[in-house]
Amino acid sequence: MKLDKQTKILIIGLGVIGGSYAKALTDKGYNVSCITKEDSDIKYALKNKMISYGTTEIEDELIADSELIIFALYPTTFIEWIKKNQHLFSPGTLITDVTGIKSSVVYEVQSILRDDVEYIAAHPMAGRERSGVEFADPSVFEGANYIVTPTDKNTKEAIRICKKLGDELGFLRISELTPEAHDEMIAFLSQLTHCIAVVLMNCNDSEGLEKYTGDSFRDLTRIAKINDRMWSELFLMNKDALLTEMDRFIEEFTEFRTYLANGDGKRMREKMRSSTARRSLFDKPIIKS
Amino acid sequence: MKLDKQTKILIIGLGVIGGSYAKALTDKGYNVSCITKEDSDIKYALKNKMISYGTTEIEDELIADSELIIFALYPTTFIEWIKKNQHLFSPGTLITDVTGIKSSVVYEVQSILRDDVEYIAAHPMAGRERSGVEFADPSVFEGANYIVTPTDKNTKEAIRICKKLGDELGFLRISELTPEAHDEMIAFLSQLTHCIAVVLMNCNDSEGLEKYTGDSFRDLTRIAKINDRMWSELFLMNKDALLTEMDRFIEEFTEFRTYLANGDGKRMREKMRSSTARRSLFDKPIIKS
Repeated sequence: MKLDKQTKILIIGLGVIGGSYAKALTDKGYNVSCITKEDSDIKYALKNKMISYGTTEIEDELIADSELIIFALYPTTFIEWIKKNQHLFSPGTLITDVTGIKSSVVYEVQSILRDDVEYIAAHPMAGRERSGVEFADPSVFEGANYIVTPTDKNTKEAIRICKKLGDELGFLRISELTPEAHDEMIAFLSQLTHCIAVVLMNCNDSEGLEKYTGDSFRDLTRIAKINDRMWSELFLMNKDALLTEMDRFIEEFTEFRTYLANGDGKRMREKMRSSTARRSLFDKPIIKS
Repeated sequence: MKLDKQTKILIIGLGVIGGSYAKALTDKGYNVSCITKEDSDIKYALKNKMISYGTTEIEDELIADSELIIFALYPTTFIEWIKKNQHLFSPGTLITDVTGIKSSVVYEVQSILRDDVEYIAAHPMAGRERSGVEFADPSVFEGANYIVTPTDKNTKEAIRICKKLGDELGFLRISELTPEAHDEMIAFLSQLTHCIAVVLMNCNDSEGLEKYTGDSFRDLTRIAKINDRMWSELFLMNKDALLTEMDRFIEEFTEFRTYLANGDGKRMREKMRSSTARRSLFDKPIIKS
């Protein structure tokens, strides 16, 4: 298959990410249909020119007619959907996803998937702390990272198309990782940070603190507003990698605590100078428009 | 004394906060002088219309002539300055500060200060992750919190003037706390968050992670770019309160880790729903201009 303006694209699951994909692709002139649970979400998407067609039914013909199918579901729902409905795909269909963990999804789906359909996994590293199609906004992809996680089962052609999709969606940096390397990376960069935000928001329940807060606390807890179903699934499906990162964090935190307890300003300052230097690498690229 | 456009204001220490005070007050029509270490900072401040006069010398006459003196120095430097130079104040001078911890500064300064000079402590809860007058920007005060921390030694009149100063600087919410309550609050909202950011930035030194990062990690580590001298002083001067908050955080973090290790999605989701609800309280007020 090819990815061009004639490609028939189907998005399954019209939440905040599925909706942002739909809007970005429709804005670029692609033809996007969707299947999702709520009729109200389809109405919203049609009204806001995000899709050309939407349904809450598993429509055999729509699925058979689609050349590129993008799954934007919770990980477990995605796997169940494939098991139940993969007989409806036409031979040669390319499927991809937006799932935030890879090993436990990619290998399972590839192992159960029909031989004449290819699944190439990808993770758009952008989101919002709210869920639902009404928060969909493709501008979150600008300047963001898009990661393709191929396995031995993937063709070069599918990898190329998947990268092109990331480019069309507006991502700045498109890269390739193994599912395992992706999951280790994500355990640290994304899952550990969400754990920290949730824990920080729960560890002191004094009243009225919001009256005194500065931006530091706001920044560290922005993602404490969290989709509990999705994130608990992601954590559990990447448990070992996340536990490893949590343990590293506790170890480093405990070391810093010891410096403070010992009044060891010199070592605290060394850690601060190191964090200052390392953080510079992570500054967001400035987008020239 | 009164705080009006005729009041002679002196700022001691023209860094990012001292500079932001200077610019905010000058923009409002106040007459602001400064004493600071570097001649280049004075040149910058004069060129950018932040002050009407500046010097690197301890000028007896300038100090004697000033009615409101704002100290924007590192905490230990502030205390040393008072010891060394307080004989230069005129009777009736009001002094205030911007120091990020209170108990260990306020009681010491008040105990050594001349009886005919009053020190009313305040903490502007706004800053930038860069230091130096060239990063001064009074717009960081908009929507931010300003906390006055009076003691038994303070007069109502001084508290009133200090609050008016916060208002003139552009702060949204001006409140009052005891030094002890302030330090407990700050240990959690500000110091613990800075510890976490520094630790997070140091706990995984895998190379190339910046290629894959999303905004969550960027948000949680923005303040990992840190002025190591100032923050290590602040941490050490508020050690007990900060250790208490670090221990609460470790306890909650370890509990969450146990849920994950046990595959206990239900309890993880409870914590996430709690963090989502609590975080809403901390949303920044929307400023209507």
